[in-house]
Amino acid sequence: MRKVAIIGVGLMGGSLGLALRRKTWRVVGVGRNPARLKKAKSLGIVQEISGDLRRGVEDASVVVLCAPVDRIAPLARIIRPHLRRDCLVMDVGSVKAAIVRDLEDAFGDPRGPQFVGVHPMAGSEKSGAENARADLYRGAACVVTPGRRTAAWAVKAAENFWRAAGGRVVRMAPEEHDRWAALVSHLPHLLADALVLSAMEGKKADRMVPLLAAGSFRDATRVAQADPEQWAAIFRMNAGPLAKSAERFRRALDGLLRGRGRSGGLRRAALWRRKFIK
Amino acid sequence: MRKVAIIGVGLMGGSLGLALRRKTWRVVGVGRNPARLKKAKSLGIVQEISGDLRRGVEDASVVVLCAPVDRIAPLARIIRPHLRRDCLVMDVGSVKAAIVRDLEDAFGDPRGPQFVGVHPMAGSEKSGAENARADLYRGAACVVTPGRRTAAWAVKAAENFWRAAGGRVVRMAPEEHDRWAALVSHLPHLLADALVLSAMEGKKADRMVPLLAAGSFRDATRVAQADPEQWAAIFRMNAGPLAKSAERFRRALDGLLRGRGRSGGLRRAALWRRKFIK
Repeated sequence: MRKVAIIGVGLMGGSLGLALRRKTWRVVGVGRNPARLKKAKSLGIVQEISGDLRRGVEDASVVVLCAPVDRIAPLARIIRPHLRRDCLVMDVGSVKAAIVRDLEDAFGDPRGPQFVGVHPMAGSEKSGAENARADLYRGAACVVTPGRRTAAWAVKAAENFWRAAGGRVVRMAPEEHDRWAALVSHLPHLLADALVLSAMEGKKADRMVPLLAAGSFRDATRVAQADPEQWAAIFRMNAGPLAKSAERFRRALDGLLRGRGRSGGLRRAALWRRKFIK
Repeated sequence: MRKVAIIGVGLMGGSLGLALRRKTWRVVGVGRNPARLKKAKSLGIVQEISGDLRRGVEDASVVVLCAPVDRIAPLARIIRPHLRRDCLVMDVGSVKAAIVRDLEDAFGDPRGPQFVGVHPMAGSEKSGAENARADLYRGAACVVTPGRRTAAWAVKAAENFWRAAGGRVVRMAPEEHDRWAALVSHLPHLLADALVLSAMEGKKADRMVPLLAAGSFRDATRVAQADPEQWAAIFRMNAGPLAKSAERFRRALDGLLRGRGRSGGLRRAALWRRKFIK
């Protein structure tokens, strides 16, 4: 049975462990925190655990880095010397260009292990293996972003891997991914944070906002609960595309606030949202 | 049995009809659209229907105006001459100061019918009687906003009425309501619309955004599906407080985009959201 090493068994890695078919894979959880690894094993997420990076990845056919975006490239470099020559390394980070370009040299030998950047567009404001779900990736867009020199077999294997986990595979360049992710994921997160910050001014707000807030405020700010360190890293590593999306957003907001053409804007937004997002 | 006339049997009026106890109230639906009235009756929302405003409100102990915010004051003026002297008139509009101040003279006689502005902070992006729910107001904050001359009996009766419908009653001045509503309801709606408008640029977006959007985009834009005409009227009638909230939001967003202090901002937002909004 082929071995897959999941480095980091939180929400993303844990859900991947649950989604992989046990007849096909021997799933090994790798991490630094023994208690977290043991919990992942007791939850049935992984079959084996390893607190040692080197031992964890050796003999693995596939390694999936489920770490915060700013830890992915450093981790990939650390494990690189210990990988099988035919190993496929992937990540699940929300930012792709910075990571894929950073690793192009380290994984540039076509006869060596290959790195393929992946972003499964699924998640939750909750984190940790205890929130992992076998169906987290079911139907989710899994964006596969090969580098300029990635071997064809690795791209194909990555796509098959995520299809088997339930995802809908979409291939594009890392930079294109980052532009869309800025718009459909990073910007909504940033807006949620800004909305919370603008609502939490003063003791009176601590009482009145929870008292009065209904569905729209709750929904619009739900993702602001997500891990702030991880999101700070995402915003930092996708700063350019995020700034452009935010600029587009600001123009749209200013237009609506000015009032002229507001009705038309609201009508177009309602029609588009009803038609395109189910 | 006391008669309550609900003018407008859409989502809000229909849910109110379902929430009222039939042993206490004779519920009459009033509107211009016969098909809609008949549907409300067939759905068990109202016991009687009337296509005539005057006939609909005569003999009513309570009249609830469930109309778009820019129709409420005009409707209240039209029905005023046909009301019982002890009639309590209320609305369910999302904007209060413009309506309450507008009607202070027309309902200023302490011996005549009284108007009490109410905003039940509940709703849905869906509309129409077919989406009405008996529990829409259960646990929802129902903000009661008396005018300067509203008779004490009417304020008390309004509060009892909404408590009986399941709401948590909160009393405040119309202007204070509008400031909080701008922050927790109107601003999130405006942001949802602006986010959709900034995402829908171009044919490629029509394909890619639905393909890639996960929970955060869906949740952040859900309310953009709401009736655009009604929301245009809300934004127009609460323009001042909304502009102030938007300015606060913009400062928060700019701060997060600049990057300095971003981690601290994200951390504060996450902690506040987790603590205060369940």
